[in-house]
Amino acid sequence: MTSILLRDVTLGDERKDILIGQGRIRRIGPVGSCADWELAGDLDSMDCSGMVAIPGLINMHTHSPMSLMRGIGEDMLFPAWLDKIWQVEEHLDHDFVYWATKVSCLEMIRTGTTTFNDQYWFFDSSVQAAREMGMRIATGYDVMDKGNRGESERQKEQCIAKSEAFLHAGDPGHICTLAFHAIYSVSEEMIVWTSELARKYDIPLHIHLCETLGEVENCKAAHGGLTPVEYLDRLGVLSPRLLAAHTLWLTPHDIELLAAHGVHCIHNINSNTKLASGYRFLYNEMRDAGINLCLGTDGCASSNNLDLLEAMKTAALFQKSWREDPSALPLPELLDMATRNGARALRIDAGRIEEGAVADLALVDTDNTFFLSPGPFLANLVYSAHSDCIDSVICDGKFLMRHREIPGEREIIAEARKVLAKIS
Amino acid sequence: MTSILLRDVTLGDERKDILIGQGRIRRIGPVGSCADWELAGDLDSMDCSGMVAIPGLINMHTHSPMSLMRGIGEDMLFPAWLDKIWQVEEHLDHDFVYWATKVSCLEMIRTGTTTFNDQYWFFDSSVQAAREMGMRIATGYDVMDKGNRGESERQKEQCIAKSEAFLHAGDPGHICTLAFHAIYSVSEEMIVWTSELARKYDIPLHIHLCETLGEVENCKAAHGGLTPVEYLDRLGVLSPRLLAAHTLWLTPHDIELLAAHGVHCIHNINSNTKLASGYRFLYNEMRDAGINLCLGTDGCASSNNLDLLEAMKTAALFQKSWREDPSALPLPELLDMATRNGARALRIDAGRIEEGAVADLALVDTDNTFFLSPGPFLANLVYSAHSDCIDSVICDGKFLMRHREIPGEREIIAEARKVLAKIS
Repeated sequence: MTSILLRDVTLGDERKDILIGQGRIRRIGPVGSCADWELAGDLDSMDCSGMVAIPGLINMHTHSPMSLMRGIGEDMLFPAWLDKIWQVEEHLDHDFVYWATKVSCLEMIRTGTTTFNDQYWFFDSSVQAAREMGMRIATGYDVMDKGNRGESERQKEQCIAKSEAFLHAGDPGHICTLAFHAIYSVSEEMIVWTSELARKYDIPLHIHLCETLGEVENCKAAHGGLTPVEYLDRLGVLSPRLLAAHTLWLTPHDIELLAAHGVHCIHNINSNTKLASGYRFLYNEMRDAGINLCLGTDGCASSNNLDLLEAMKTAALFQKSWREDPSALPLPELLDMATRNGARALRIDAGRIEEGAVADLALVDTDNTFFLSPGPFLANLVYSAHSDCIDSVICDGKFLMRHREIPGEREIIAEARKVLAKIS
Repeated sequence: MTSILLRDVTLGDERKDILIGQGRIRRIGPVGSCADWELAGDLDSMDCSGMVAIPGLINMHTHSPMSLMRGIGEDMLFPAWLDKIWQVEEHLDHDFVYWATKVSCLEMIRTGTTTFNDQYWFFDSSVQAAREMGMRIATGYDVMDKGNRGESERQKEQCIAKSEAFLHAGDPGHICTLAFHAIYSVSEEMIVWTSELARKYDIPLHIHLCETLGEVENCKAAHGGLTPVEYLDRLGVLSPRLLAAHTLWLTPHDIELLAAHGVHCIHNINSNTKLASGYRFLYNEMRDAGINLCLGTDGCASSNNLDLLEAMKTAALFQKSWREDPSALPLPELLDMATRNGARALRIDAGRIEEGAVADLALVDTDNTFFLSPGPFLANLVYSAHSDCIDSVICDGKFLMRHREIPGEREIIAEARKVLAKIS
């Protein structure tokens, strides 16, 4: 198996040599020290002068097959938009999901992401696509019975069969999860059933939660004044396994409950603002309560891309604005949201560039106008640069992109065009 | 002089041939029709299949030499940030301004901008830099006496000498303007003097206006309860020559006054939100009052880049969010803000791709994942793509960038590094 040697790469404020082998970061030393290392076997050496290494980004909320559904519901409020999406989704199949996920992988790799937490149907095709691209994917069976009892029984059976098959396969690049779409699209029985199954398997459970004010109001009307968080608490669903996307409309009591149960919350600013669902994500309050806060883009039908670096900037601008505080959401915390906090939620040893950690990282090319500055690197990366400064991406110790080249890109785009022609 | 033939370029929903000569768009016909055109002299022909032509973007508020001052005042409120900037600016010179403007031009050309409305000192060096890069620049003498009487007299003399020299030179690629920084940094006498000079020359007057709530409150305290707009109205400064950047904190009466006097207003969302100055730009109210609304990025020390395509997306997300209306700031209006509205404010025949218009345009490469979609082109351009989809840029009938190559880019970055080394 080939090892990778990154020579003269900037890490923090220092220039280093980094050795990667068998999926892990093996050694980090001062630049030049690799000359003293015993380097046996195949070695792929890369000159990284002028490049800064950052942990591979972790996009904690995606619906990757939606990359081929962009623009089908522009400028609609969330409920109308969701109806439109559900209409289209009735016609999807494995072929669509496979190629659309590959398109999403292209877009995420190009923008520095190495791991994504997905939620969609035909997830086996997404797993296949992502693993062929070399990305780390978290996904699993997505329960959404819309209250239909026959559908629930069918989904239970499928869910167990598929989950156990994937858990048995044990691919470390696929973090097997469970999902139920949301409290308004899944029956109470299935919410509890899915949650219990996640507890039994001890795997993450990925849901939408408190995305719109309407969701909260409907829940309170239907469940004796309980908020969605209180309702899930009553059902016993809150736990450190729970990955809750959006969490935009929370009461102080909701925040206490989420913190007390170790729920991980995922902020999706581009989606929330484009759909006008809300923008006052309670970052400070949730952080101070001790909640692990992650970042996502949501699916391309809402957000409309998978660029987590762009999402970082948008998140910062909204926090600074509505809090009327330009120091809100400081850059190091923003980077944590996009890297190590996601790794913590998914229980993977990534999100940091240190000896022993999983070798998931991106190399940022600073030889362009955006980094001509006396300011700090992170400010230039997030506020000035675009994701095209991502020169190369390594996941699990293998190059997914090298100097902006991703193997197979042209073929994927051509195949995606054929899939689109079929559905349009 | 070489003519340019763009073959098989998409314009709106149709594929066209476009002939450009002597700085203007000469002919537009169905694809293939160029075979019947009489094409004499040097002809530079380009296959544009898979590319969409859009008008060159017009960035209506920049301080281009600030490209080398990024990150020096991160995470500060506007007043503290401005003090920091003013300290640094005391040490600048022509050499700094020349190379920093070139860096800004690189960044604007790469992101599809052909014209920018600048405000800074040593503006002659900015004019030289921009014109060497082939860009159209609007700039002129920037008055800022900070109430110092001796400084006023010196600036008056310089202002007249420089303005008349540039007006006499008559370069159509340089739109000569005047500027006074803001009501809080310029004495009343100089505000009136500069405004009268702009009236005499009949040229645009570029100012900052109602950028922060503090500016409005201070003005009311100092001028018997008048808002900044009312104050300028009393001084006779409001006119169709006035280009007012920011206009964030306005009363209904302010909007009436701005509309009645034909003032052009410039929205700078990235700067306003990053500095936490405000985000509720009254787009609908101002548009409905008949005000011409343009878009800008502001200088890189605040925003922190010159990417107008990015600013378009941010502007849309903020309007949709705070208005709680996902249909707010529709895409065609957003494109107008970034193109033809700026042309109108600067009185140039650009911002449209039609026979006879000035040949300022950008070619968008759609052969990538961002345009794989059943949705409309503009949605993909603004919401999905990044500015690296800009393949080529033409200004005044000449290529500034061709297939992402800008002549002299490496040298400019190298020289900018030398300038930075001098000041750090």
